Amino acid sequence: MKSQEELLALVEQAIVANAWKREPAGLYEPIEYVLSLGGKRIRPCLTLMACNLFTEDLSDALKAALALEVFHNFTLLHDDIMDKAETRRGYATVHKRWNENTAILSGDAMLIEAYRLLDKLETPRFREVLGVFNTTADEVCKGQQYDMEFEKRMDVTLDEYMEMIRLKTAVLLAGSLKIGAIIGGASDVQAKALYDFGINMGLAFQLQDDYLDAFGDPKFFGKAIGGDILCGKKCFLMLSAYELAKGVEREKLENLMALDSKTCANEKISGVIELYRSIEIDKRCQERVNHYTAKASECLKKLGLPEEKLEPLSLFAGSLSKRRK
Amino acid sequence: MKSQEELLALVEQAIVANAWKREPAGLYEPIEYVLSLGGKRIRPCLTLMACNLFTEDLSDALKAALALEVFHNFTLLHDDIMDKAETRRGYATVHKRWNENTAILSGDAMLIEAYRLLDKLETPRFREVLGVFNTTADEVCKGQQYDMEFEKRMDVTLDEYMEMIRLKTAVLLAGSLKIGAIIGGASDVQAKALYDFGINMGLAFQLQDDYLDAFGDPKFFGKAIGGDILCGKKCFLMLSAYELAKGVEREKLENLMALDSKTCANEKISGVIELYRSIEIDKRCQERVNHYTAKASECLKKLGLPEEKLEPLSLFAGSLSKRRK
Repeated sequence: MKSQEELLALVEQAIVANAWKREPAGLYEPIEYVLSLGGKRIRPCLTLMACNLFTEDLSDALKAALALEVFHNFTLLHDDIMDKAETRRGYATVHKRWNENTAILSGDAMLIEAYRLLDKLETPRFREVLGVFNTTADEVCKGQQYDMEFEKRMDVTLDEYMEMIRLKTAVLLAGSLKIGAIIGGASDVQAKALYDFGINMGLAFQLQDDYLDAFGDPKFFGKAIGGDILCGKKCFLMLSAYELAKGVEREKLENLMALDSKTCANEKISGVIELYRSIEIDKRCQERVNHYTAKASECLKKLGLPEEKLEPLSLFAGSLSKRRK
Repeated sequence: MKSQEELLALVEQAIVANAWKREPAGLYEPIEYVLSLGGKRIRPCLTLMACNLFTEDLSDALKAALALEVFHNFTLLHDDIMDKAETRRGYATVHKRWNENTAILSGDAMLIEAYRLLDKLETPRFREVLGVFNTTADEVCKGQQYDMEFEKRMDVTLDEYMEMIRLKTAVLLAGSLKIGAIIGGASDVQAKALYDFGINMGLAFQLQDDYLDAFGDPKFFGKAIGGDILCGKKCFLMLSAYELAKGVEREKLENLMALDSKTCANEKISGVIELYRSIEIDKRCQERVNHYTAKASECLKKLGLPEEKLEPLSLFAGSLSKRRK
C-alpha cells in the first residue's frame, strides 16, 4: 500500500503529464493555469486510496483520479463566474485574469476532458464507473443550483442546507471513493460503504468549513474571519442561529444582520460571533462535525478489511474534520 | 427503412418523453425551454438515418440521437451568452429570459445529460461511440474558441476560416452520422465514409448560411439580410472579398466597412453586397457549396450500399445546401 505522500505525488505527476499545451492556447492555457494553482487534491487522492485498498495496480485509478480533479476544477471555474469571485487560492480567477467567455468555454472543455480521461480506462467495469461519474456530476450541478437559490430565499431550513451540501460537496468525495473502489475490484457492498463514508466525511468537511469561517484561528485560516457573516451566507451557523435564537437574542441577531457589511464590518462580525457563542452554535457545529466523522468511521468498518488497511482513510477523514484551514 | 418524417417524429417524441420536469425546476426548466423551441433537429435525424442504413432497430440510435441534440442545444446556450445573442429561433435566449448564471449552469447540466443519455446505450460498440462523441465535443469547443479569436484578428485566412467551420459546425454533423453508423453495425470503412460525408455536407451547410446572410430572399430567410456585414463577421464572403478585391475595389470595401453600422446600416449592406456581386463573390460561394455537396455525394458511394438506400441522405444533403432559410 502506498503512503499518502506517494499517492499525492502520483496525482501531481499525472496533472503535469497530461500535457495541456494544446492548441488553441486561448482555450487550454486557462485550464493549465487553474490546475497549476494547487489545492488539496482531495478527490483524486480518495480515488487512489480507495482503489489501493483492493489492489496495488493503480494505473486505471490514476486516470479516473485525474478525471475527477479536472471535473472538480471545472466546477470551480464556472462557480467562480456565478459567485463573481475574484480570487481562488490566492490567485486571480480565470474570468478575472482572462474574461467570462474564456471561463465558460475553457470550463466546458474541462468537463469534456474529464470524460476523455475517463474513456482511457481499461477496466471491464467501465460502465459502472461512468454511471457513478454521471450521477455525481448531475448532483453537483443540482447542489450549485440550490446554493444559488438559497441566496435569495429567507426560509431555508437546516435540513435543506444539509441536502444542498450533500449534493454540492459530499457526493463528489463519495463518488471519487466509489469509482476508485470499483476500479480496484470492490464488491457492491464495499463500494457502497466507501460511498457512504465519503458522504459523511463530506458533510463533516463542509460543516468544518462553516465553523472555521467564524471560529477559525486567523494564524492558520487562509481567509479573513467572518466572510460568511458579511455576505449573509445561509451556512450551518447562521441557519442554526435563526432556528435557536428566541426573544431578545433573535432581535439582536436580526439587528446585527441588518448592519451594513461595508461600514460596520467589524461590529457585525464580532457581534454575530458573540451571539453564536452565547447560544452555543459553535459547540453544536463541532458536535455535528464529530457526529458525521464518527458515522464515516462506522462505514469503514463495513468494508471487512483489516484495521491497518483502513488507517490512511481514517486519518484522512480525521485530518479534514480537524483541520484549521 | 423509415421516412424522413417518421424519423423526425421519433426525435420529437424522444425529446418530450425524456421528462425534463425535474427538481430543481430552476435548473431544468431552461433546458426544457430551449429544447422546445424546435429547430431542424438535423443532428439526431442524421444519427437515425445513418443507423437505419444498416438496421431497422433504432432503439439505441434514438438514445444517441437525443444525446446529440441535447449536446447541440448545450452549445447554443453557452454560445448565446458568449455572443450576447438576445434571441434564438425567434424567442428570448436563456440568459435573457432567466440570467447568465442560469444559462451557464443549465448548459453544464445539459452537457452532463448528454453523457447520461449516451450511457443508456446497450450496443457492444459503446466505447467506440463514446470516443467519437468525446472527440467531437472537444473539437466543437475548439471551433467556438477560434470563432471568438477571429473576431479580434484582422489577418484571418480563408483556410483558417474553413478549418474553424469544420470544427464548429461540420464535425458534429459528421459525428452524429458516424455514431448512428457504429450503432447500426457499420464497418470501419463505412463509418468513415459517413463521417466524411458529414464533414463535406457541414461545410456546404455553413457556406450556404454565409451566402444567405447576404444573398438570401427576405421572403424566406428568417433574419434580416446583412447581419454579418453589419457586425463585420469574417465569413466566407467577407474573407473572399478581402482576398480578391484589389486597387479601387479594395479601397471601396475598406471605406464601406468603415461606415457606422448603426447610422449607415442600409448604405453599408447594399454597398458591400454590390461589391460582392461585382467581383463575383456570390458565384464563388455557390461554387464552393456545390463543390462540397458533390464531395459529400462521392463519400456516399463508398458505402457499397444500393442506390435507393442512399437516397434519403442524398436528398437531405441537397436540401441543406439548396435551402433558402
